[in-house]
Amino acid sequence: MKKHNFSAGPSILPRVVLEQASKAILNFNNLDLSLIEISHRSADFVAVMEKAQQLTLNLLGLENKGYSVLFLQGGASLEFLMVPYNLMKENGKAAYIDTGVWSSKAIKEAKLLGNVETVASSKDKNYSYIPKNFSIPQDAEYVHCTSNNTIFGTQIKTFPKTDMPLVCDMSSDIFSRVLDFSQFDLIYAGAQKNMGPAGTTLVVVKDEILGKTGRTIPSMLDYQVHINSESMYNTPSVFAVYVSMLTLQWLKDLGGLAAIEKMNNAKAKLLYDEIDTNPNFKGTAAIEDRSHMNVTFLIEDTEKAASFDKLCKEAGISGIKGHRSVGGYRASIYNAMPLESVQALVDIMKKI
Amino acid sequence: MKKHNFSAGPSILPRVVLEQASKAILNFNNLDLSLIEISHRSADFVAVMEKAQQLTLNLLGLENKGYSVLFLQGGASLEFLMVPYNLMKENGKAAYIDTGVWSSKAIKEAKLLGNVETVASSKDKNYSYIPKNFSIPQDAEYVHCTSNNTIFGTQIKTFPKTDMPLVCDMSSDIFSRVLDFSQFDLIYAGAQKNMGPAGTTLVVVKDEILGKTGRTIPSMLDYQVHINSESMYNTPSVFAVYVSMLTLQWLKDLGGLAAIEKMNNAKAKLLYDEIDTNPNFKGTAAIEDRSHMNVTFLIEDTEKAASFDKLCKEAGISGIKGHRSVGGYRASIYNAMPLESVQALVDIMKKI
Repeated sequence: MKKHNFSAGPSILPRVVLEQASKAILNFNNLDLSLIEISHRSADFVAVMEKAQQLTLNLLGLENKGYSVLFLQGGASLEFLMVPYNLMKENGKAAYIDTGVWSSKAIKEAKLLGNVETVASSKDKNYSYIPKNFSIPQDAEYVHCTSNNTIFGTQIKTFPKTDMPLVCDMSSDIFSRVLDFSQFDLIYAGAQKNMGPAGTTLVVVKDEILGKTGRTIPSMLDYQVHINSESMYNTPSVFAVYVSMLTLQWLKDLGGLAAIEKMNNAKAKLLYDEIDTNPNFKGTAAIEDRSHMNVTFLIEDTEKAASFDKLCKEAGISGIKGHRSVGGYRASIYNAMPLESVQALVDIMKKI
Repeated sequence: MKKHNFSAGPSILPRVVLEQASKAILNFNNLDLSLIEISHRSADFVAVMEKAQQLTLNLLGLENKGYSVLFLQGGASLEFLMVPYNLMKENGKAAYIDTGVWSSKAIKEAKLLGNVETVASSKDKNYSYIPKNFSIPQDAEYVHCTSNNTIFGTQIKTFPKTDMPLVCDMSSDIFSRVLDFSQFDLIYAGAQKNMGPAGTTLVVVKDEILGKTGRTIPSMLDYQVHINSESMYNTPSVFAVYVSMLTLQWLKDLGGLAAIEKMNNAKAKLLYDEIDTNPNFKGTAAIEDRSHMNVTFLIEDTEKAASFDKLCKEAGISGIKGHRSVGGYRASIYNAMPLESVQALVDIMKKI
């Protein structure tokens, strides 16, 4: 049965990538060995790592601009700790924008290492919008934001203009749209939405912002240690890096960020148009801040909701239950989601 | 061509496991979805995580003995930091046994958090033996050892007797032999030798030793946080956990640790006997401390070495180059390595 996989993450990957990954588990590069049973320091895997790094810089338009690319472990959750360790002086200060659960977790970890000023928050309205018009204290050492909130279905369209290092958690919308990525000094993202399977974390960092805190940083938390070892300070998450590389190559072959943005916009428009015109549905996020990755909506009539659930199940639509803190539904329409699957969902919405 | 994969890690996995993993990438549990594109909180994956934890306790004989099992990210290298964070009081003291590179790295990270006393070391002879007859200071809060050294080919046969918590890095020989595992209070192991692919780290911890330091521990470094969330505080490394579960099931079906120990002993005996009887070869580790996982040896005649290299290549033998700090050769003969592959290597050694 054809499935339409709207899972929020780990989430849909291109079929061609899954097929290549499946083959590599049995026989990688015609070595008669599995991808997952060779040394990470073998020429065959080093080439995978280097290609993943090159594709990242190429797709983000950051080649030859002083950025390093890392594939680490621990997810964005470990980055919440690594960012202040690497960028905040002892008793220093950082400015955080609170747009939901992930920002809040980042703030909690940063507070262990210094002073955190939450310069803006949308907590007052259950994070249903992106706060704007705030000021950043001049003595902060960096500004941290979360580009897309998977739970509340919001997405930052315009990022803060600042002279200090701008750090962004892009876990749920990396590689989904065209941006001037050089406005960021540090980007991090768990792979398991638009980039690959769970198990690796992308970090893109401008080299010049590192080494300024005076802190002694534990080896595994030190970006410079990982840069010096080309993401092989210890054994990397081989399979997750490989599948990420394949997914980035798929994206490049498709036409890169300009092409995928166009497709993502079309999918989002199709779904939001139905939400806005069908009286049975109601979007939960402020219209101007709506995410093009995670579309959150409610059905207020419980009988109609039951009927909707039944029809979705029959149509092979999976993963659209909303997060408990918002309720209702969440359709995640990441890069690999085809327009046809969104159309299948909209067709059912029209029947309600 | 049939390959004989002696890689030190990531390393050989059972063929049946690779076949199951390859299929799950395309269609997991007949869901018509890939293992790597479903939610880690779905019933199907939660069952994988629980089974991996149960198999771990069952194989180690630690069921109902107050231990928790975690599958984390970051490898043993992150454990080097997590162990002191969770077990060492501020300005506390820990005792470490230095048996090579991995112990030394563990000591380096622990020193960031307190006083480390290296109670024994075999550095004086390039780590070619396991130090014995040392005393542990009574004011230490735990003792740390490394059960097997992949680089120097040594393995601890008898562990220190102590009343304080005993912590052991078993990355390279976990699940390879019968031990009284209840003598350990904390065991950790990167998966990529005897347990699965790179990308997940097993931690088995006795619950009662936690929560005693008074430290504020960052969330991702706090074992109790991961225990409370059943290894799902953040997205786990789904694929690596799944393949580990399959490998543990394969091991259980084979007869568990007693069965695999017998096979590992037979493989080790076959190879060491050839090293000891063939005048062209010389073992590098002290005989009584020889590892049954990583067999290190030299060929002193360079012409014979070239001939050996050529014959190995022709026979499909891969991954036996020794680590640069020892030189020569290293044949890693982990659980999944069949006796036939060791025999293939010995057959070539006999021709030299």
